[in-house]
Amino acid sequence: MNSERLARARQALVSAGIDVLVCRLPENVLMLSGHWPLCGDAVLVFPAEGDAVLILPDTEAEEAAPEVWGAKILTYAHGRHDSPDQDRELARILAEIGGENRWDIVGYEMSFDGIASPGNAAEPRVPGTKFARLVEGSFKSAKFVDAQEVLDSLRKTKTSWEIEKIRLANELANIGIDAFFNMTDAGRSAIELAAAVEHEIVVRGTGYKNVRRVRAFAQVAAGNRETSAGWRPFEVTTAMKLRKGDLAILELAVVADGYWADRTRARSAGPASEKIQRLNGIVRQAQDAALAAIGPGVQGGDVDAQARGVIVQNGHGREFVHITGHGVGFRYHEGYPILAPESRQVLLQNAVVTVEPGIYSMDFGGIRIEDNIVVTERGFQILAPFSREIA
Amino acid sequence: MNSERLARARQALVSAGIDVLVCRLPENVLMLSGHWPLCGDAVLVFPAEGDAVLILPDTEAEEAAPEVWGAKILTYAHGRHDSPDQDRELARILAEIGGENRWDIVGYEMSFDGIASPGNAAEPRVPGTKFARLVEGSFKSAKFVDAQEVLDSLRKTKTSWEIEKIRLANELANIGIDAFFNMTDAGRSAIELAAAVEHEIVVRGTGYKNVRRVRAFAQVAAGNRETSAGWRPFEVTTAMKLRKGDLAILELAVVADGYWADRTRARSAGPASEKIQRLNGIVRQAQDAALAAIGPGVQGGDVDAQARGVIVQNGHGREFVHITGHGVGFRYHEGYPILAPESRQVLLQNAVVTVEPGIYSMDFGGIRIEDNIVVTERGFQILAPFSREIA
Repeated sequence: MNSERLARARQALVSAGIDVLVCRLPENVLMLSGHWPLCGDAVLVFPAEGDAVLILPDTEAEEAAPEVWGAKILTYAHGRHDSPDQDRELARILAEIGGENRWDIVGYEMSFDGIASPGNAAEPRVPGTKFARLVEGSFKSAKFVDAQEVLDSLRKTKTSWEIEKIRLANELANIGIDAFFNMTDAGRSAIELAAAVEHEIVVRGTGYKNVRRVRAFAQVAAGNRETSAGWRPFEVTTAMKLRKGDLAILELAVVADGYWADRTRARSAGPASEKIQRLNGIVRQAQDAALAAIGPGVQGGDVDAQARGVIVQNGHGREFVHITGHGVGFRYHEGYPILAPESRQVLLQNAVVTVEPGIYSMDFGGIRIEDNIVVTERGFQILAPFSREIA
Repeated sequence: MNSERLARARQALVSAGIDVLVCRLPENVLMLSGHWPLCGDAVLVFPAEGDAVLILPDTEAEEAAPEVWGAKILTYAHGRHDSPDQDRELARILAEIGGENRWDIVGYEMSFDGIASPGNAAEPRVPGTKFARLVEGSFKSAKFVDAQEVLDSLRKTKTSWEIEKIRLANELANIGIDAFFNMTDAGRSAIELAAAVEHEIVVRGTGYKNVRRVRAFAQVAAGNRETSAGWRPFEVTTAMKLRKGDLAILELAVVADGYWADRTRARSAGPASEKIQRLNGIVRQAQDAALAAIGPGVQGGDVDAQARGVIVQNGHGREFVHITGHGVGFRYHEGYPILAPESRQVLLQNAVVTVEPGIYSMDFGGIRIEDNIVVTERGFQILAPFSREIA
């Protein structure tokens, strides 16, 4: 049980003058209840004082029960042809809870943009305006505030429970990277690689160290043209087959029971040329330099400068187009900490961040190496290290 | 090019008195521009009169260009370490467009709840309150209205272009069902089946009849206990191995270039008992009865009554817990049409709907058969039919 998280959250609410939080984004429900929502229907009422209440469709209760850290679970009938209207049920239960408690200030999720998918990634359910009106109508005479800042602040550092969960997601990612390394060869298509990576992670990850629900999202760029554009925030995975010596980049998100890993490796189809070996060495050296700079109190910009310095020194500065890293854990990408040239964000102990330098050129393609690390008292720890060999 | 859709949308805006729509949900951007957003960043400005403008991060422009039906594409720099702030760029471009046009009534997406994932299903970006404020700040002196009703109404019936795309998604789903049928046997785990289904669809579907981007979301319930709860809005896919004679249910979403299929089959691990064969026959008969009732002008409740009647007659009425069908195409689940006991929704020609009766019991497990059909002038057409044999 993640008691540290619950204590910190209560403390943060008190400091912010918020009496109760009403959360529905899966990533926040997970952070504060232990339950990773299946479809995005779970609503968590988390007060600064007293017990939290998790409101669930009854179809989800059996899966939630073993996950929840002590919140009281209330359910409503759902998914049957004669189930009552879901919004009305939610409003009824919220009003009951509100009636039993006299909360003046209610915080809810308003200003989000990117969201982590729930278990059912095909069709997330999100707290839009309709849900905001429902919450507002359920708590009589309360004042409503955007809780985004409090939630963002809470997510900046991870508890030891959460770090172990993110490490697990990274261990599962390594299963996929291993498959990618073994399979990348001439004649293999990008889509075959991506599908195999996802397949291996899901099959071998379900049940691994008691992980219950796993999903992998693999994107593979293949060949000069695609990998040279591999710095974009996505790869387009095609059926194009690799030729001997082509590079492939695997961009990989893994979610294990709601905790995320974000990893990248590049690999040569067959033996790599001396040039590619040298470039991969530069990227590794850049990653090592960034890592060596990491520790509590260091600014994001200083970490970025170390990685960028190595690449600039080797004459590839203009080919390292993106930032060096970003937060990860409750989501594929989190807004803190950002390792970028202008970032004055200060690294806190127990922040989890990606370190992912890369070099991209039409001449030879693209190479990126991405690992997830936790900021420790004395420096950093890589969560589930893995080979960085290009061939 | 889906000209019929664009004409209908302009007409609907005129009727609703909306001068321009600003859309960001991937499903609406796709419907009105042809581009299936990669991450959820694309913003479409779609006026009742004049040309539409699709605003994109420049990283996405190359992928979008061949998809777009004539909207003007405007881009901003994105994804580089020195890219300007994305919200500021969006606001700047929207204000420019707003300045060139004098729109009084601006419609945007407000009251959505469920959303279709963008290409990157791991981390959808959604138009929350922050985006609403950005839009409001960009169009001086306009009045803003919730466009949800207009959008929902537009989505009720599909154009021939869209029907062919949904048919394609169903053809890809059949690749997965075929793998499921071939692999379901004693000793095989649910997660192996789900992973294999996704693998086959993605590998064989990418490039199939020019499909560019494919994702499959397979959930498999296995054995009596899980399949008897297989009526819930999700299956939990575990590493539990099937034993001889066990049932498995495959619940499958497939998205092909943004168009969705929602399919289900049940399968016995090895030969099915006479009882299971008989029950599967009842479910098939229920599906056939529902299908026979479908046609323009028929109420959703009447279709449900046909399926339910067959199952009730055979003594399993209480075991058909869910509704008979729902809309599908722009999303895994759409709100129109609903085939349910109380549904007075009238079926329109070119509506696309699932037909998915099922029987669930702790005695023998669960069976569901789900296909996607289009309402035709004279009745219905199944989009990519496939075997309904249980063994």
